[in-house]
Amino acid sequence: MPGANDRTRTDDLLITNELLYQLSYIGRQEAALETPRSKNAENNPESRPVSIDRLKTRLARIKDLHAAAAVLDWDQETYMPSGGTEARARQLATLQELAHELFTSDETGSLLDGARPGTEIDADLVRVVREDFDRARRVPSDLVARFARETSLAREGWQKARSDNDFRRFAPHLGTIVALCIERAEALGYPEHRYDALVEEYEKGMTTAELRRVFGDLRTRLVPIVQAMAAAPPIDDRVLFRAYPVDAQRGLTETILAQIGYDFSRGRQDVSAHPFTTSFSIDDVRVTTRFDGRFFPSAFFGSLHEAGHGMYEQGIDRALEGTPLADGTSLGMHESQSRLWENLVGRSLPFWEGRFADLRAAFPEATSDQTPQSFWRAVNRVQPSCIRVEADEVTYNLHIMLRFELETRLVEGSLAVKDVPEAWNAAMEDYLGIRPPNDADGCLQDIHWSSGILGYFPTYALGNLASVQLWNAAVRDLGDLDDAVRRGDFGPLLAWMREHVHRWGRRRTAGRILEASTGSGLDASPWLGYVRRKYGELYATAL
Amino acid sequence: MPGANDRTRTDDLLITNELLYQLSYIGRQEAALETPRSKNAENNPESRPVSIDRLKTRLARIKDLHAAAAVLDWDQETYMPSGGTEARARQLATLQELAHELFTSDETGSLLDGARPGTEIDADLVRVVREDFDRARRVPSDLVARFARETSLAREGWQKARSDNDFRRFAPHLGTIVALCIERAEALGYPEHRYDALVEEYEKGMTTAELRRVFGDLRTRLVPIVQAMAAAPPIDDRVLFRAYPVDAQRGLTETILAQIGYDFSRGRQDVSAHPFTTSFSIDDVRVTTRFDGRFFPSAFFGSLHEAGHGMYEQGIDRALEGTPLADGTSLGMHESQSRLWENLVGRSLPFWEGRFADLRAAFPEATSDQTPQSFWRAVNRVQPSCIRVEADEVTYNLHIMLRFELETRLVEGSLAVKDVPEAWNAAMEDYLGIRPPNDADGCLQDIHWSSGILGYFPTYALGNLASVQLWNAAVRDLGDLDDAVRRGDFGPLLAWMREHVHRWGRRRTAGRILEASTGSGLDASPWLGYVRRKYGELYATAL
Repeated sequence: MPGANDRTRTDDLLITNELLYQLSYIGRQEAALETPRSKNAENNPESRPVSIDRLKTRLARIKDLHAAAAVLDWDQETYMPSGGTEARARQLATLQELAHELFTSDETGSLLDGARPGTEIDADLVRVVREDFDRARRVPSDLVARFARETSLAREGWQKARSDNDFRRFAPHLGTIVALCIERAEALGYPEHRYDALVEEYEKGMTTAELRRVFGDLRTRLVPIVQAMAAAPPIDDRVLFRAYPVDAQRGLTETILAQIGYDFSRGRQDVSAHPFTTSFSIDDVRVTTRFDGRFFPSAFFGSLHEAGHGMYEQGIDRALEGTPLADGTSLGMHESQSRLWENLVGRSLPFWEGRFADLRAAFPEATSDQTPQSFWRAVNRVQPSCIRVEADEVTYNLHIMLRFELETRLVEGSLAVKDVPEAWNAAMEDYLGIRPPNDADGCLQDIHWSSGILGYFPTYALGNLASVQLWNAAVRDLGDLDDAVRRGDFGPLLAWMREHVHRWGRRRTAGRILEASTGSGLDASPWLGYVRRKYGELYATAL
Repeated sequence: MPGANDRTRTDDLLITNELLYQLSYIGRQEAALETPRSKNAENNPESRPVSIDRLKTRLARIKDLHAAAAVLDWDQETYMPSGGTEARARQLATLQELAHELFTSDETGSLLDGARPGTEIDADLVRVVREDFDRARRVPSDLVARFARETSLAREGWQKARSDNDFRRFAPHLGTIVALCIERAEALGYPEHRYDALVEEYEKGMTTAELRRVFGDLRTRLVPIVQAMAAAPPIDDRVLFRAYPVDAQRGLTETILAQIGYDFSRGRQDVSAHPFTTSFSIDDVRVTTRFDGRFFPSAFFGSLHEAGHGMYEQGIDRALEGTPLADGTSLGMHESQSRLWENLVGRSLPFWEGRFADLRAAFPEATSDQTPQSFWRAVNRVQPSCIRVEADEVTYNLHIMLRFELETRLVEGSLAVKDVPEAWNAAMEDYLGIRPPNDADGCLQDIHWSSGILGYFPTYALGNLASVQLWNAAVRDLGDLDDAVRRGDFGPLLAWMREHVHRWGRRRTAGRILEASTGSGLDASPWLGYVRRKYGELYATAL
C-alpha cells in the first residue's frame, strides 16, 4: 500500500514498500526462479515435467516465509526494543500461518502427486516433502488449536509452579499435555510404540525400541563409571570463576570460531539471553552467545557448541538451497555436530595445548598461574548435579535416560502424573547418587513438557553418542587428529563432516548417515570408550 | 516443515519452525485478533457487520507481511553478512509478492464493498484503502512487469553512465523510463496534468498546478536571496572537519535523540551506509545513521533528521495499529518532521546555546576554541554547490525547483531526453550561479530517475516549506519556543506535532493537516521569512 511507512531508503530516497514491490519484485522473482530453471536445463528438461518446478517454486515460497520468520525471531532475541514484542508476535503468527496454509493445501498435494523427479535430488525432495505433507495433514486442526491453547496455559502454570516450587500447580497441565500428546501420537500413527510417533517429529526413523536398547546398555555401563569418579578426588576448577573481561571473551570466541571453520562471511555472532543458532539460507547462518564476565565456560563452550550447529547448516549442499532438504536432518545429528566441536575438540588436551597462548593473551591475569594441562583439567570437571543444562559431559546422558524413561511411561500410561516427582527423585538417586532438594531443581526444571514437547530429550543423548562415532570414523579415515587440533588445522575434520554429514541435508536420515559413514548404527560403546580413556586419565582412576 | 532448520531455541531447546507454528500460532492469532474485537465491543457491535473485521484481519495480515519485509530490509542494511544477499532478495520478493496478491485480490475488493464502518476511524480506513486498492488495480500487471525490468536495466545503465560521466549511456534508459511513467500516469488517470498522477503516488492530493504556483513564487523570491548571500563574506566552517571520535558521536547522538523525544524503548539507532528510518509497528520504529570521524554534521544532523521521521511514526494513534492508516500520510509531511528537528531545532542558536556543554564534553579538543555562536554559524554555512544531497538549508529548494521543472517538461513532452543535460546546467546557472563541471555532478547525480521514480522530488521542498508553517503554528499556540529549546524542554513542541500531525496517520492528507493546524494551505512565505531572519543575522546582510 502507498504511504510512507514500511519503507526502504536509498541515500535520501524514501520509497514505499508497495512501490518497492512494483519496482523490483518481478526482477527478483526472475532471479529467484533462475536457479531451478538453469538446473533443469542441465538435467535434461525433457525428462521432467514442469510440475516439479511448480512444486519447487511453491516450496521455495514456503521456505522464504520460514526464513523470514527466523529473521524476525533472531531480531527479537538480539536487537528488538521491548516495545516491539506485541507486534512481533502478530507478525510471526502471520508468517507461520501463511507458510502452514501454503504447505498443507490441496494444491501442494496435487503438485506432489504430479511430480516426476528427473534427478536423485528431486526424487529425495519429493519423498521427504511427501512424508512431511502426510504428517502435517494427519494432525486435525482442532487438535493443533487445543494443543496451542493448552501449552500456552501450561507454560504459565509451569513458571508459577517452578517459582513457587509446587509441582501440584503444574500437575493438571502436565496431565492435559500428556493426553494431547497421546491424541497427537494416535493421529500421526506409529509402527510399534506410541512414543515412536513423538520421537519421529525430532528424530526421523528412530524408534522407542532402539532407544531402549541403546540407552539401557548405556545406563548400565555408565552408572558405575560415574560412581567411580565420584569417589576420586575432585578436580579444582576455581580458575573458571575468575574475571574474564567480556570484550576479550568476544574477541577470543570470534577468533576460535573462525579457526575451526565457521564462515563469518556467511554468518555472524551476536548476544542473546539464550544462545541459539538460526539459518536464513545456507549462506546466512547466525549464532548467538552469552557472556559472563565471571565464568569462562559460559560463552566459550556455548560459542563452540552453536558454531557446531552453524557449520552443519553452512555445509549443506548448495544444490539444496531454497528447498526443504536444505536443513539439518535431525536434532540428534545436529547435536552430534555441536557436541563434537564443544567437547571432542574444545575440551580436549591437544586443543588447549594449541590454544593456550591465545587464552593467556586474552586473559593474562586470570590465567597467569595456569598450564594447558591445568586449564584442560578445569574445563573437564565432573560432578553429579541436579540441573541438566549445567551437567558435565559424563553425567549429562543420565539426565536424559531419566527423562526418556519417565516420558515413555507417561505416554504408555504406566506412570501417573502425580507420581512424577517421586519417580524423578528416585531415578536421580539411582543414576547420579543425589536427590534434588526440591521439584524446582527436579522435575520442574525443563521447559519442554510445558511446551507440549515430549520425545525431544533423547536427541540430546543421541547427539553425544553419535559425536564420538563420527569422530572415530574421521580418525579411521584421516589418521590421528591430535596434532592437527593442536596446530589449529581443523580443515580436514570439517571437510570430513561436510562430506559425510553436512552436505546431505535432509536427503538422508541420521541413521543412514551414521551407517554410511561409520559402518554401524547408533551404539553407546564408542562414547563409553571415549569417556573411559579421557576421564580415566583426568581422574587417574581405572574406569 | 519438520527438520531442524529455521529454528528457535529457548534455553537449549531447539524447535522447528513448523512445530513452533503448531505450538503457538493459534494463541498468537487470538492475541492478534483480540484488539479489533475488543474495539468493536466498545463501539457497539450491532452497528457493524463482521465484514469490517474480516477486512481488518486481511489488512493486518498484509501489514504484517510489509513489516516483515521491512525487518528483512533493515537487517540487510545493518547486520546481514555479505553471503546473505541472494537469498534475502528472494525472501523479500516472496513477502512483497504475497502482500501484493493479498491486497489486490478480488476478495479484498468484495470485503471493501461489503464494509459498513461503524466508527470514524473505520470510515477513514475504508475510504483510504479503497483509494489504494483502486490505484493498485489500475496499473496492469504487464506494465508493472515491464517497469520492473526496465528500471533494473536503467539502474545499471545509470551507474555506468555516472562513473563514465557519459549521459549518452543513460539517455536511452531515461527515454524508456519517461515513456513508462507516461503510460503509468495514463493508466492511473489524473484531474488535469499527467504529472499529477505521478505526484499522487508520494503526495496524495497535491497537483502540478499547485506545485507550480508555490514553487514559482518560491523561486522568484529565493534566487535574489541566494545571490545576496553569495556576495557576503563566507562563514568559516573548518571546525566541522576536525577529529570527532566515533564513540563520542554515537553517545552524543543517542543523548540528543532521547532529549528531543525519540523513544528508545520503542526504537533503536544502528549504523548503515545510507541513513534511513523504518517502522515495524508504532512501537518499533528504528533509525540508522552514518559516522564520519572527520566530519561532524554527517552523523549529528543525519540522526536528528531520521529521528524526526521516527518520532512521526512513533506518534501515530495506537487505535490505528495494524491498519494501513498507521503510516505517515505523505512523504512531504514526513520530510516536514525530519527537517523541523534537523534544521528549525538542530540548526538554531538556542539549540546550540543549550547543547554546547554536551558538545564540549564529547569533543573537548575539536571544540576547545568554539563558542555556541561560532559553532552555530559553522553548521549554517550557505554555499551554492552542484550536489543536492550536500546542499545547505537555503539552496536546497532550488535543486528541487530545477528537477520539478525538468520532470514536468519530460512528462509533458516539451523537453527531449537528449536536451536534459543542457537544460539542467542552464537552470543551475540561473538559480545557483554555478555550472556543473560534468553530468556526473549534474543530471546524473540522483538515483531517482533510474529507479523509475518521477514526481518524488517535489516532496523534499514541500517538507521544507511545511516545516516552517508547522513551527510557526506551534509558536502561535505555545508561545516563543527559544527558551524551551535552550533548556532542552522539547516536550511541548513534540506534543503539538503529535496532536496536529502524528496521531492522524493517513486519516488526513498532508493538505488537510496543514489547513487544520496552520489555518492555511502550502505557502512559501513563512519559509522565506524564516530564511530572511535567520540568514540575515548570520550573514549580517539585509535579505
